[in-house]
Amino acid sequence: MRGVVMHAPGDVRVEDLPDPVIKEPTDAIIRLAATCVCGSDLWPYRGADAVTEPLSMGHEYAGVVEEVGSAVTTIKPGQFVVGSFFASDNTCEICRAGYQTSCVHREVLGTSGGAQAERMRVPLADGTLVATPSLPDADLVPSLLAASDVLGTGWFGAVAAEAGPGKTVAVVGDGAVGLLAVLAAKQLGAERIIAMSRHASRQQLAVKFGATDIVEERGEEGVARVKELTGGLGAHSVIEAVGTQESMRQAIGATRPGGHVGFVGVLHDVEIKGDDIFMTHVHLHGGPAPVRRFLPELIELIVNRVIDPGEVFDLELPLDQAAEGYRAMDERRAIKVLLRP
Amino acid sequence: MRGVVMHAPGDVRVEDLPDPVIKEPTDAIIRLAATCVCGSDLWPYRGADAVTEPLSMGHEYAGVVEEVGSAVTTIKPGQFVVGSFFASDNTCEICRAGYQTSCVHREVLGTSGGAQAERMRVPLADGTLVATPSLPDADLVPSLLAASDVLGTGWFGAVAAEAGPGKTVAVVGDGAVGLLAVLAAKQLGAERIIAMSRHASRQQLAVKFGATDIVEERGEEGVARVKELTGGLGAHSVIEAVGTQESMRQAIGATRPGGHVGFVGVLHDVEIKGDDIFMTHVHLHGGPAPVRRFLPELIELIVNRVIDPGEVFDLELPLDQAAEGYRAMDERRAIKVLLRP
Repeated sequence: MRGVVMHAPGDVRVEDLPDPVIKEPTDAIIRLAATCVCGSDLWPYRGADAVTEPLSMGHEYAGVVEEVGSAVTTIKPGQFVVGSFFASDNTCEICRAGYQTSCVHREVLGTSGGAQAERMRVPLADGTLVATPSLPDADLVPSLLAASDVLGTGWFGAVAAEAGPGKTVAVVGDGAVGLLAVLAAKQLGAERIIAMSRHASRQQLAVKFGATDIVEERGEEGVARVKELTGGLGAHSVIEAVGTQESMRQAIGATRPGGHVGFVGVLHDVEIKGDDIFMTHVHLHGGPAPVRRFLPELIELIVNRVIDPGEVFDLELPLDQAAEGYRAMDERRAIKVLLRP
Repeated sequence: MRGVVMHAPGDVRVEDLPDPVIKEPTDAIIRLAATCVCGSDLWPYRGADAVTEPLSMGHEYAGVVEEVGSAVTTIKPGQFVVGSFFASDNTCEICRAGYQTSCVHREVLGTSGGAQAERMRVPLADGTLVATPSLPDADLVPSLLAASDVLGTGWFGAVAAEAGPGKTVAVVGDGAVGLLAVLAAKQLGAERIIAMSRHASRQQLAVKFGATDIVEERGEEGVARVKELTGGLGAHSVIEAVGTQESMRQAIGATRPGGHVGFVGVLHDVEIKGDDIFMTHVHLHGGPAPVRRFLPELIELIVNRVIDPGEVFDLELPLDQAAEGYRAMDERRAIKVLLRP
């Protein structure tokens, strides 16, 4: 089968790879309906994460089950499924508390064959995968794919930030996750949603998803602008969807005392000083989104056409043109690139 | 009147000071029934915080109102009152959300005359002070004084850590705040309470306050021991009541994924790495305890003799012997020293 391999920063190739096979009786093999390039794929692409050996890329997936291991009981061949980027048993105490990405049996997907390919192996299939009620219409596939990571991650950011009725929510970051955090805050009932973005096309999508205010300023100026919009207090809920020192400081600074920061951008070389969280009285919570917690609800919203998160895909390419997809995301020509195997 | 002044690290004197006077119409003057030395007073005493000018010490107080300003409407002369170490209006949006220590009009007490004195001025009296239902019996005074800071702070730590029914709670720090966090966790219904302490007398008080387990190990070993006691997962709720880099790491490490760290030790030169909060999935919340939020409830529990937090005072001295009180706390001969003006 064909699949994407990163050999070095900036060097992404589509190659012939061995077909995945069932290794554990709890595995499933799925044929991907669609996959995509993640913002986090850009860290190694840009050399910010080391590439010490060829990497099989991709961890976002939706598709049809082709085969299941002998111990798989609920997931069946022929079903259309969506899963998260970490496999989880969904039965341990941590999963039951809603933190499937910290499951005691979790496995990172992609380590033995990534999702940017024609087929992939998914471990702990019963715990990891959620089937749609029936085979979805083709136009729903991008949204279901978005649920696999960027929607689920933005949603977790909004939940971690306790976005809800009566709340003013600010979103730091206008990538796919930040934009879908706007959508999530809207669905969760937030009264006012401030999107921090300086790109016209992303601002437009933010407004479409529910943003009521746009702040173009960043850093200290961005913080001052959010305070100005909130009676000098700051937002109740701030979602951090970038992962840098500057964006984290911006998120904490824009939050009112007693407010909540939900951080979902993968933190890179971030250090938080005690003073930044002690005297500010903010709540901090985040990490790798437990997407599995939200998947049943997100799938329902998508198949009932209540939300259309697939709109974040503004470039679609055949899998064989993955290298161009990476370039378009790296140069910020595309918000998010969908790849068709 | 007599009052405590710190002239330099280790140099604490009781001196004749001018009597406090009403400066703002919202002020009250109270005569202290009792005051005490705080763990945070030891930071300048030990030279960890600079002493650039003589400091009027003390911020924990309970006593009788002698005089009120013309704008004070609810607090009246003759009432016995307890207040917090930050004055607050208790009416702004931040106060109403329960964060009175971040009140938009907050004032740090002690800057114009500390509580380790015969009398003190309390700004924003109506917002800051809570009166007891009637003049309390003398034996209740230590507990009411404890409510002013250490009990309220331990209580906030337990609330911030979401201690409650079905939860396993661990407490890092066996000072007065840590011990009263044990008491708070017990009152909030925690199922199991692990006190981290290696001092026999403090362990005894922890058990009396509700601790079910004692862990003597610290740092990585302490974390490992808490995990061992919790099926490998860590505690649901961890209260950090020290404020150092090591204690904060210990608190985060002892918390299970999805669990809550409530930190109330004043953080000194603490830096939290992104990885410590991203992959661990902990919630972090803390800061200067909004004691005012809890005072009505705490006073009720004390006057009804449901709790006896005054037991943390294991040394009582006349105000004039304050220097010996500081030495006893510094050398850890006393958990907490009560001073009688």
